[in-house]
Amino acid sequence: MAQKQDNDNNFKEYLVADNGLLDRRLFLKKGLQFGAITALASTYSQTASADEKEAFNPARPPWMNKPGEPFSIYGSPSTYEDRVVRFPTQNEAVPGNGVSWTPLHLMEGTITPNGLHYERHHNGVPQIDPAKHKLLIHGLVNSNRFFTMADLLRYPMQSKICFIECGGNSNAGWNSSPSRSEAGYFNGMASNSEWTGIPLSVLLDEIGVKKNAKWIIAEGADAFNMQMSIPLEKAMNDALLAVYQNGEKIRPENGYPLRLVLPGWEGVLNVKWLRRLKLTDRPVMARNETSRYTELLPSGKARQFTFHIEAKSLITSPSAHMLLKQPGLYQITGLAWSGRGKIKKVDVSADGGKSWAEAELQEPVLDRAFTRFRLPWYWNGKQAVIKSRATDETGYVQPERTELVKKRGKHGFFHYNAIINWQIDEDGFVSHVYDQDEQSSSSDISIDSGWD
Amino acid sequence: MAQKQDNDNNFKEYLVADNGLLDRRLFLKKGLQFGAITALASTYSQTASADEKEAFNPARPPWMNKPGEPFSIYGSPSTYEDRVVRFPTQNEAVPGNGVSWTPLHLMEGTITPNGLHYERHHNGVPQIDPAKHKLLIHGLVNSNRFFTMADLLRYPMQSKICFIECGGNSNAGWNSSPSRSEAGYFNGMASNSEWTGIPLSVLLDEIGVKKNAKWIIAEGADAFNMQMSIPLEKAMNDALLAVYQNGEKIRPENGYPLRLVLPGWEGVLNVKWLRRLKLTDRPVMARNETSRYTELLPSGKARQFTFHIEAKSLITSPSAHMLLKQPGLYQITGLAWSGRGKIKKVDVSADGGKSWAEAELQEPVLDRAFTRFRLPWYWNGKQAVIKSRATDETGYVQPERTELVKKRGKHGFFHYNAIINWQIDEDGFVSHVYDQDEQSSSSDISIDSGWD
Repeated sequence: MAQKQDNDNNFKEYLVADNGLLDRRLFLKKGLQFGAITALASTYSQTASADEKEAFNPARPPWMNKPGEPFSIYGSPSTYEDRVVRFPTQNEAVPGNGVSWTPLHLMEGTITPNGLHYERHHNGVPQIDPAKHKLLIHGLVNSNRFFTMADLLRYPMQSKICFIECGGNSNAGWNSSPSRSEAGYFNGMASNSEWTGIPLSVLLDEIGVKKNAKWIIAEGADAFNMQMSIPLEKAMNDALLAVYQNGEKIRPENGYPLRLVLPGWEGVLNVKWLRRLKLTDRPVMARNETSRYTELLPSGKARQFTFHIEAKSLITSPSAHMLLKQPGLYQITGLAWSGRGKIKKVDVSADGGKSWAEAELQEPVLDRAFTRFRLPWYWNGKQAVIKSRATDETGYVQPERTELVKKRGKHGFFHYNAIINWQIDEDGFVSHVYDQDEQSSSSDISIDSGWD
Repeated sequence: MAQKQDNDNNFKEYLVADNGLLDRRLFLKKGLQFGAITALASTYSQTASADEKEAFNPARPPWMNKPGEPFSIYGSPSTYEDRVVRFPTQNEAVPGNGVSWTPLHLMEGTITPNGLHYERHHNGVPQIDPAKHKLLIHGLVNSNRFFTMADLLRYPMQSKICFIECGGNSNAGWNSSPSRSEAGYFNGMASNSEWTGIPLSVLLDEIGVKKNAKWIIAEGADAFNMQMSIPLEKAMNDALLAVYQNGEKIRPENGYPLRLVLPGWEGVLNVKWLRRLKLTDRPVMARNETSRYTELLPSGKARQFTFHIEAKSLITSPSAHMLLKQPGLYQITGLAWSGRGKIKKVDVSADGGKSWAEAELQEPVLDRAFTRFRLPWYWNGKQAVIKSRATDETGYVQPERTELVKKRGKHGFFHYNAIINWQIDEDGFVSHVYDQDEQSSSSDISIDSGWD
């Protein structure tokens, strides 16, 4: 734990790191007296005491004076929330090739509602009639087999809450200048859902896999005809043929009616609109695993078949484009995740990485799922840089940007998982910054080059 | 474990109860050989082997021959799923008074997507401008205080995945004849979300609660002006002032912009559109806690302030109105929940309650949240009655219907949590039935009488 500084405020006894980071149990009543919380919390509420008469009989707002809207068979967000949307960026030369970003900076908790799950398509969203959709399993199997959706719905199902993250998420981080986007529109090619479907192992066991089969080529029924190679071991271990997302059938843009879900592995492998699984003895070496999703390392070797998402975290609030209106108590909050298991801890710094304190992790902490972290912070009104650092249960620690760039070199494009800095200026405005020594060390690519 | 019968099928060695209930680990590879699974599973796939030529080069469906639909800023379900909707039933004499039911029988997993969360309103859904919404806390406090939504968003938050269930859910079960509705349209006034908000205890600590305060009157900003009395202890323990539901702001029909969430307590207490909390020394004795949500017991006493939802379970598939097309292997699946903690186990019977087997519970099993259970079942094509029975961590066991009716009497209307029977006829059609000895023991009320 860092040495405690005098931050010229009332929270000295709760400081756990420099520049105002406070005990994560401050609001959790674990060993804290109510009186202590009261004294602290009252300093940051700006609301005045209510007028006695008004408080006795508060005025009725207009919506209490008439019956409300009727029941609906399928609900929508409030019209007052119409800016909480996905943000599309696309290659205008190819219809439906691009992404839409989840607005993580406008969200809380860990579940992504289906309407806001990020999209990454190569040629648009096919409108599939489930009565005409079939899954073919063939190749190195004892018997080729088609499965209709009606067939598949008879099979046993399992559920798994997990994230899916595009391998290209956060790749603006490779640029020489910090991103100017909001946190979600820079890091929101990651979303977290409860997926329900048939364990792929059940189907493979049923039709019989030949001994020389080592890979499965998964193919999507979109116009791009996505093909990806997946090691048989993963397929047998925990792959799901997902039919439901957060309780209802998967949305069209997330693979309706059938998606391959590979918990913890990069998004492109979680093939949407799944129509074919071909068992083979080698990878298909398709375009998206050779010219794309592959990187040249400083050693001269190519980094290919980078399946796992490594541990990562992101402060979602305060984050870029937000404005802290005055000094006082804030809750730093964000998300952490790892493709290799559970998040073990998230450390937070408010002095640019000199001192760190451990954040509270919201229970339940689940395997390969978004984990929400939170830590109280007293902002003293001076310039500050806040950052978060995830550690997963394998012991892997999220790297600083300089470390990542050094290891992965100038051709880095995918799997950017470095620590992200948010700078709060004296006027309260928040922006993305690199550490001083990072400014000249990085490559300078266009993030748009990835959409072709 | 029940004595094993010969069911005239291939699954004898996996039988765990009579009439075809099979080992819950059948598909989970725990201690089962792949070969065993293969031999079993292949008996219930009706799909033919694929033609060799077709399997080598499967025909492309039409949606692969043109670019798909563009990106969307907020997604919607497939148009092919337009029957997966909430089902409204209402009192036509009062605008916006009624419910809409979650289609639990058409869903899987545990999370309810926000568009399908059940509704129970007394006078419609107010359209609240969050910039004009205020929460007043007053009464037996040290200082009255208004909080704007902007104020509240500064406060520390916590998340909780939990169910909310209307006290009137499943009340068709009190009728003398079994319900003819689908499982969700009879039991779907229960839904499960991740709620995120400010612990109410933080605000109460801040403004200071007087020693004689024992209750809080919570008031909603709808035209009905809902008022409910909540013991202070619950408010201090785990009540949330919820702002987010499944990651995004709460939908209007679920209380936008602010809802009181009381994990495990009946729905009406989870006051929507929360505008006022008045601390008092006694309950308000409002209409919805005297003439409603109160029942006359056989002893002559009134059952009032029935806060907790007792343990309950429901088989969602196979369930009423479904059709099993042929004998064979099926997965029995459903939901269990308890307002007093975690579900400890769910037993399933396929012979009307004579023998039982323990179902697999989907991990993570969470406190006061929907828990998905599943068990493989070989249906031999003869008439069968399936049912599920939940036990929670307090040891409470979901009662049979006769037991519940005997205890609660003829004036039962709320908190129906009896075991539900689904009968599969020889033609495969599924319907709701009572046990033979239940037919004459029950009351005969109109379920519609509850909406006034």
